[in-house]
Amino acid sequence: MFRTDTCGQLRMTDVDREVVLSGWVQRVRKMGGMTFIDLRDRYGITQLVFNQEVDAALCETANHIGREYVIQVKGVVKERYSKNANIPTGDIEIIVSELTILSTSDTPPFTIEDESDGGDDLRMQYRFLDLRRDCVRKNLELRHKLAFEVRRFLDSENFLEIETPILIKSTPEGARDFVVPSRMNPGEFYALPQSPQTFKQLLMVSGFDRYFQIAKCFRDEDLRADRQPEFTQIDCEMSFVEQEDVLNIFENMTKHVFKAIKGIEFEGNFPRMTWHDAMKYYGSDKPDIRFEMKFVELKDLTEGKNFVVFDSVPYVGGICAKGCAAYTRKQIDELTEFVKRPQVGAKGLVYVKCEEGGTYKSSVDKFYSQEDLKLWAERFDAQPGDLLLILAGETSKTRKALCELRLEMGNRLGLRDKNVFAPLWIIDFPLLEWDDETQRYYAMHHPFTSPKPEDIALLDSNPGAVRANAYDMVFNGVELGGGSIRIHDSALQDKMFEILGFTQEQAHYQFGFLMDAFKYGAPPHGGLAFGLDRFVSLLAGLDSIRDCIAFPKNNSGRDTMSGAPSIIDDAQLKELQIKLDLQA
Amino acid sequence: MFRTDTCGQLRMTDVDREVVLSGWVQRVRKMGGMTFIDLRDRYGITQLVFNQEVDAALCETANHIGREYVIQVKGVVKERYSKNANIPTGDIEIIVSELTILSTSDTPPFTIEDESDGGDDLRMQYRFLDLRRDCVRKNLELRHKLAFEVRRFLDSENFLEIETPILIKSTPEGARDFVVPSRMNPGEFYALPQSPQTFKQLLMVSGFDRYFQIAKCFRDEDLRADRQPEFTQIDCEMSFVEQEDVLNIFENMTKHVFKAIKGIEFEGNFPRMTWHDAMKYYGSDKPDIRFEMKFVELKDLTEGKNFVVFDSVPYVGGICAKGCAAYTRKQIDELTEFVKRPQVGAKGLVYVKCEEGGTYKSSVDKFYSQEDLKLWAERFDAQPGDLLLILAGETSKTRKALCELRLEMGNRLGLRDKNVFAPLWIIDFPLLEWDDETQRYYAMHHPFTSPKPEDIALLDSNPGAVRANAYDMVFNGVELGGGSIRIHDSALQDKMFEILGFTQEQAHYQFGFLMDAFKYGAPPHGGLAFGLDRFVSLLAGLDSIRDCIAFPKNNSGRDTMSGAPSIIDDAQLKELQIKLDLQA
Repeated sequence: MFRTDTCGQLRMTDVDREVVLSGWVQRVRKMGGMTFIDLRDRYGITQLVFNQEVDAALCETANHIGREYVIQVKGVVKERYSKNANIPTGDIEIIVSELTILSTSDTPPFTIEDESDGGDDLRMQYRFLDLRRDCVRKNLELRHKLAFEVRRFLDSENFLEIETPILIKSTPEGARDFVVPSRMNPGEFYALPQSPQTFKQLLMVSGFDRYFQIAKCFRDEDLRADRQPEFTQIDCEMSFVEQEDVLNIFENMTKHVFKAIKGIEFEGNFPRMTWHDAMKYYGSDKPDIRFEMKFVELKDLTEGKNFVVFDSVPYVGGICAKGCAAYTRKQIDELTEFVKRPQVGAKGLVYVKCEEGGTYKSSVDKFYSQEDLKLWAERFDAQPGDLLLILAGETSKTRKALCELRLEMGNRLGLRDKNVFAPLWIIDFPLLEWDDETQRYYAMHHPFTSPKPEDIALLDSNPGAVRANAYDMVFNGVELGGGSIRIHDSALQDKMFEILGFTQEQAHYQFGFLMDAFKYGAPPHGGLAFGLDRFVSLLAGLDSIRDCIAFPKNNSGRDTMSGAPSIIDDAQLKELQIKLDLQA
Repeated sequence: MFRTDTCGQLRMTDVDREVVLSGWVQRVRKMGGMTFIDLRDRYGITQLVFNQEVDAALCETANHIGREYVIQVKGVVKERYSKNANIPTGDIEIIVSELTILSTSDTPPFTIEDESDGGDDLRMQYRFLDLRRDCVRKNLELRHKLAFEVRRFLDSENFLEIETPILIKSTPEGARDFVVPSRMNPGEFYALPQSPQTFKQLLMVSGFDRYFQIAKCFRDEDLRADRQPEFTQIDCEMSFVEQEDVLNIFENMTKHVFKAIKGIEFEGNFPRMTWHDAMKYYGSDKPDIRFEMKFVELKDLTEGKNFVVFDSVPYVGGICAKGCAAYTRKQIDELTEFVKRPQVGAKGLVYVKCEEGGTYKSSVDKFYSQEDLKLWAERFDAQPGDLLLILAGETSKTRKALCELRLEMGNRLGLRDKNVFAPLWIIDFPLLEWDDETQRYYAMHHPFTSPKPEDIALLDSNPGAVRANAYDMVFNGVELGGGSIRIHDSALQDKMFEILGFTQEQAHYQFGFLMDAFKYGAPPHGGLAFGLDRFVSLLAGLDSIRDCIAFPKNNSGRDTMSGAPSIIDDAQLKELQIKLDLQA
């Protein structure tokens, strides 16, 4: 038996018990004739004591133990002389009588502490050591708990978890598929699923009524900080439901999770906002509503004053930064630099300071009188001491830039506390998005999303105006999940494919099995998928989903620890009947 | 709102309620002026009634509804005149006042009933319809419940579910890997995991202490009836444990699952048998111990009687079929044909009938006297009326054949009841298996399996005799799970690689990251993995794991419903920098 207790378990009530513990050596300290070792495992840290006077040989052995050795000790629990109130085991220590070294350790390439001295790359190469750090382990513990609570909730609501295949048919619409050559079917390939979308819809046709799956999904995209080639979805689908039913269930699921994991209870229903309002007031389909600072539009108030910058563009709008009228020239310049960064893309920034005496100071007061500026301020409902920040340009670009500026001001004003959680449903998404480059419509969500019944008539006359029965759940400016009511009618689905520019053959080749299924009695259905990685990141307050994944890939899709991907044998290629075709 | 209740929900206590139901039309019957529809969903079947006299138009619509249409009805719950005691809703029916057809259905290619008229291939092509059958749906419901109960148990035992990657480094030892070309790293490939083995060991090195994962695994093997290219494991690992700890936890998990799902409680501990005894008495490392019928060895009793068939071989052994002495010539011939089938491979079958008067009748009584046969019978502990069935030949081949014969007799005698569950631990596996063809040892489990400490000395002198700390859980002749205590010592692991014929370079290239990890304090650890598909099949009494997988592949690795695998675009191949190299 390697242990009677874990390193997080012993308390004053255990005093005088003989115990056996095993774990890792966090640190070794010598003080006078005593040696102290902090012994660590997943559950905590326990202090071990070796006394030179009592057993010099044992103490000598202990003195030669290094960091991260794995040891086993036998000893008696005693009350500590100087207690450590910071840890649950801080009242006791173990007077060690036997010591076994189970494994030695080379000196780790970085310190195994929350604030490690190891850089990102080094920690990724030695991920097995990085995972020993408390802060990293806690993220994975939270991930386990989240997944378990989600399952507990959905099970109690009669959802069945059903595994759908990982080796599926390639359907190139959407992002790039990862593909897998089939040895038994030479020249043919499986794809890895970007999501279980078609399978979950088939399960509805099969009558499973309520399905979910915590499912691995794959996208061969160029990776950004917040993307991984494989990621995990909480994928759900329900039959005989309308949008309202779906929103209710998953709002309740989310509340259950927050209660179980963070002890947070939300009052009342999550607020809802149309996609149109989200774009108008926040310039984003995932607004961070932990703080107000809505966009205010000024175009009508700015016209005809010979300020060509405003007169020549369709959109003038801004935000009101409460209490920032005292910003210095330097601070204003910083903000101007911020909006002019290529990622934000504004041409410049106009400000109006609302001063205490009811006067206004602005970068455009050559063109606009105090009365003009007063009208602006009134529209913002600005008070003396506030700062108006105004951008102008093409509508959707300017809104995006203003969104960035708003978030930046939120950061500067400390309005984006990671411990505050602001949920929001975005509803009434457009069904279609026009792409100028390819001169065609694309499905904003995917080709199976149902238009709102009252908008179906517009499909022919004004496809861009058709709203979808689609919805996203947003928290703190992050899209946590999204979904839609699906089309369950073959004829309407055919029409959608037509609008999306699929030929009948293409549609049949890619989605024929789903279309066939719809001919045999498809129930009305809809669903939603949450990004599990994002959900964990939100709850844990992480900046990157990478921090809640045990073995993530880097931006080149590489696992630097194991060395994946790697070259494979010629024999293997030959068996698969493929060869490399490397471009110089 | 599509429904107020499901089709399995309404009872006498609901009589006179107005309800809305939605579901599939199971069947339509006309009787006099009445039309009855059985409306089906996942939860049950409810009878709908349409009365020609009350609403002729509605009844007429109902009469034109076909099988598998999806409809919605509004009506009032009434007590039935002739009740159906076979279904929970059999006391009531719905007098329908409103009817909406939500989807029509073509005539299904086979009947949606437990005993369907559709063949295997047809049902696989229309799997979405096959899944509507009660018996198929129940398997997936059981699968959900099993996975959930496993998670509930392991969570309560402090196991953390941690996702390990699907895109990993290829390690060709073992079965064939599926590989995935990396677009971002041209010429390099990921592999899909055959199991999370190395990652779960890394997690132990990382201090996660207790890990599990219900994980998809992949093997590119030629498929047999009970193999799928992707399958699911309940994969577990623990630190600071000895074999006994692992057996205890997973025996308890199995008991929990049987209790929760089947209401079955096992008394006492699961029996244990050494691998050596399993081979000697059952000719298999996964004996079906629902019935006794152990092998009895006779070589010493048969020698020197001029029966060259027995004298020329190392092994003579048999089984005693209780009460089968009255088998006819035809029955004995059938058994002889059975053992001579190439899959079984025996040359012939010797029988001894133990007759009522204490005499013996045998196919070899030319060579053996009544006294000889009496000695045989005594060793079998045979009684008058029993039938001895004896095979002879090379030891391990003959044991395998005798195993098949034993199972066949178990079937014939009705001793293999699917509702009886006989658990068994097989322990003390050999560490290594000699392969005549390649003239080298292979790891019986995998290269990380720990030898028994007391056998380590034999590694140099007699590797074949070394026993492993490895164990399998067997139920009813099926290996449900298996695992081992792992090597956690770099030096011992190096030695194992050497014995297995790895060069240092090969070992380092394939498993370097695990070996590196072991240098930084590896805890003693061990684990086990269950085949989830097999576990479900066992509980559901299925003949093939395919029946508990929502969307299985056929023996060519093909999903005939969706058409995977399939050819992919040239552009896609080009992007991946590979090309086809089809052998004529």
